[in-house]
Amino acid sequence: MTATSTAVTGIGSLVTNDPSFSGADNPLGLVRDAAVVVEGDRVVWTGPSSKAPPTDNRVDAGGRALLPGFVDSHSHLIFAGDRGAEFAARMSGRPYTAGGIRTTVAATRAASDAELGAALDRFLAEALRQGTTTVETKSGYGLTVHDEARALRIAAERTPETTYLGAHVVAPEYADDPAGYVDLVTGPMLDACAPHARWVDVFCEEGAFDGDQARAILTAGAARGLVPRVHANQLTAGPGVQLAVELGAASADHCTHLTGADIDALAGSATVATLLPGAEFSTRAVYPDARRLLDAGATVALSTDCNPGSSFTSSMAFCVAVAVRDMGMTPDEAVRAATYGGARALRRTDIGTVAPGARADLHLLDAPGHVHLAYRPGVPLTAAVWQAGELRWRAGHVTLEGAPGGT
Amino acid sequence: MTATSTAVTGIGSLVTNDPSFSGADNPLGLVRDAAVVVEGDRVVWTGPSSKAPPTDNRVDAGGRALLPGFVDSHSHLIFAGDRGAEFAARMSGRPYTAGGIRTTVAATRAASDAELGAALDRFLAEALRQGTTTVETKSGYGLTVHDEARALRIAAERTPETTYLGAHVVAPEYADDPAGYVDLVTGPMLDACAPHARWVDVFCEEGAFDGDQARAILTAGAARGLVPRVHANQLTAGPGVQLAVELGAASADHCTHLTGADIDALAGSATVATLLPGAEFSTRAVYPDARRLLDAGATVALSTDCNPGSSFTSSMAFCVAVAVRDMGMTPDEAVRAATYGGARALRRTDIGTVAPGARADLHLLDAPGHVHLAYRPGVPLTAAVWQAGELRWRAGHVTLEGAPGGT
Ligand SMILES: [Zn+2]
Ligand SMILES: [Zn+2]
Repeated sequence: MTATSTAVTGIGSLVTNDPSFSGADNPLGLVRDAAVVVEGDRVVWTGPSSKAPPTDNRVDAGGRALLPGFVDSHSHLIFAGDRGAEFAARMSGRPYTAGGIRTTVAATRAASDAELGAALDRFLAEALRQGTTTVETKSGYGLTVHDEARALRIAAERTPETTYLGAHVVAPEYADDPAGYVDLVTGPMLDACAPHARWVDVFCEEGAFDGDQARAILTAGAARGLVPRVHANQLTAGPGVQLAVELGAASADHCTHLTGADIDALAGSATVATLLPGAEFSTRAVYPDARRLLDAGATVALSTDCNPGSSFTSSMAFCVAVAVRDMGMTPDEAVRAATYGGARALRRTDIGTVAPGARADLHLLDAPGHVHLAYRPGVPLTAAVWQAGELRWRAGHVTLEGAPGGT
Repeated sequence: MTATSTAVTGIGSLVTNDPSFSGADNPLGLVRDAAVVVEGDRVVWTGPSSKAPPTDNRVDAGGRALLPGFVDSHSHLIFAGDRGAEFAARMSGRPYTAGGIRTTVAATRAASDAELGAALDRFLAEALRQGTTTVETKSGYGLTVHDEARALRIAAERTPETTYLGAHVVAPEYADDPAGYVDLVTGPMLDACAPHARWVDVFCEEGAFDGDQARAILTAGAARGLVPRVHANQLTAGPGVQLAVELGAASADHCTHLTGADIDALAGSATVATLLPGAEFSTRAVYPDARRLLDAGATVALSTDCNPGSSFTSSMAFCVAVAVRDMGMTPDEAVRAATYGGARALRRTDIGTVAPGARADLHLLDAPGHVHLAYRPGVPLTAAVWQAGELRWRAGHVTLEGAPGGT
């Protein structure tokens, strides 16, 4: 028995990220007047509409653009509490003495499992409505063995891309004993967290964890089968990027302050440079220079860094627009970084493309082309989203002939 | 017989812009745990939920924030054609020889009335879904007597805020005779357009219309009962702002390059400084300095400038976020500029506030406070929109107990 097949036809412009279609003058593997055939949870065929094979069902995209679902490879969504007042104070130049990340840690510890799970469900649904079909998310607001482990357990029930970030900051209880906290993070906390995590991460920065501490934490995680990724070079040109490359990390994230040697290291490695423009936007900081990284040959990903302190956006489209405006990326490069780049940063080959064999994660735009993600900043353009072959979201004003509830 | 009354209760945070509630420490007239009572198309009462009078119906806002609908006082939405490729080329550093605004003029002239009306309907619906309940829009892509007049006629069927902008650029047919084009704009074109317009506008800039031409055009319009507004000081510190103040224009728009004298003139006048961050965002230009204008005492509005060439956003929330990030505005100031400021720029007292007697244009956010418009950039936060007392939009994922179709 084969699964039911559905063709999405009448796609005005299809971003495939498929080498079968891409080339120097077509970096996204664009196909015009395209169709995609889905069977079960997989894409089985892509190409010009006129050549589409017969299928059981047919949905008309109405000339809209279709892209791979966004891959948001860096977020911090297991938390409780609200920090809108802190943001308002920062943006108004008013002093704000309440505790920053400590506020979130206290609220997260005080929240029930059900509350944390419901909040994560809301964020994942919000992301899905904006075209994001894969979300990585991290612990890091628990900072005790119990609270880090339960954050990852709750996350792992909802996404396979879970990251152990016990080393987000030194827990308040260890303020006078950072070495003791590193021992906790590499010892009992790792024991409790490893079963629920795929990745291990550390915030390598002045005031957080230095290069030696970061190496110890990432190495301990790797010994337990977790693959490293690193918060690197966000505020200063520290050792994070070099460490990430040395340890074969999947990704070095932020990359805001890079030396020439950092850029060379990234370009000569399989470590993806994951840029997080929402953080610079929301802290009025200087943006990373994506142009230099791309010109050097590094693989670049874009992600939201969605978190309540420094980047509370869940909009990958917004990140694309800012990357084009302020980071020297072309619209093609930014869209590729938000799809294929995110998949590379998660070492996934089944997502980030619309190609035979890929998971059918499809993002239909209420626009004729992917360029509109940058051309129409802030406008919610997501018309419909399929995740693993299932139509999970359709905007209320969009009709899709042939789709369930679509006409 | 009185109209049916409806109370929206359980509003976590209500922006009123009402002097009865506002003060130095509460510039937006915020009321916590608030209710709003609507009768027919008007607000009849606002205050703490606990003191709300009895009503026929009751809708529970679920603790969300409620704001006046956005007033988008500057847009260019009567056009046809697509310029996504031009935007992509500009943002990719590639040459693009096709004609810029001339492309839009040609496509607009070639479009049918029905096509232009349908496109405008789509834009107004898109704006409404993002919380915008009043839209000003301009002619300026016809540039013939016939095409300017029909653009305004089509617009006037859909919004009272229509602006005659025959002086957008010199029409291609008059490239060698700009004085002749000014004669057309102040003569037969004005005759044909005045019945369909409330405002007269001119693009006063090097390469478009100089101070003398702008004065002639605005004066001629004023003599026909149209109130002036001016595209002023976008690319250079030209004469536009001073002219706007001298002629008592309702608004000077862009205000990107201002002298100290320009700022003093605005601060000492009733002319609103309307800032359009979407234009600077989408052309990688320097942003206007809202801080200086506010500190000098000028009234500031924020608007989208939505147009296919230089700012194709319809998102007032996006403009708020950029104004906070890059123009020195606090979240309170930006939200006020996008509501009350826009109303001032249109000389309207019935919109831009949630106060007894105001039109019931209400914007419910899927967030606890208005700060989230800047705190969550790019995230579509509009939960529901009432226009003149009628629930016109509710996001698919939002339930509103008591609202039509809401539970
Ligand atoms: Zn992060
Ligand atoms: Zn304009």
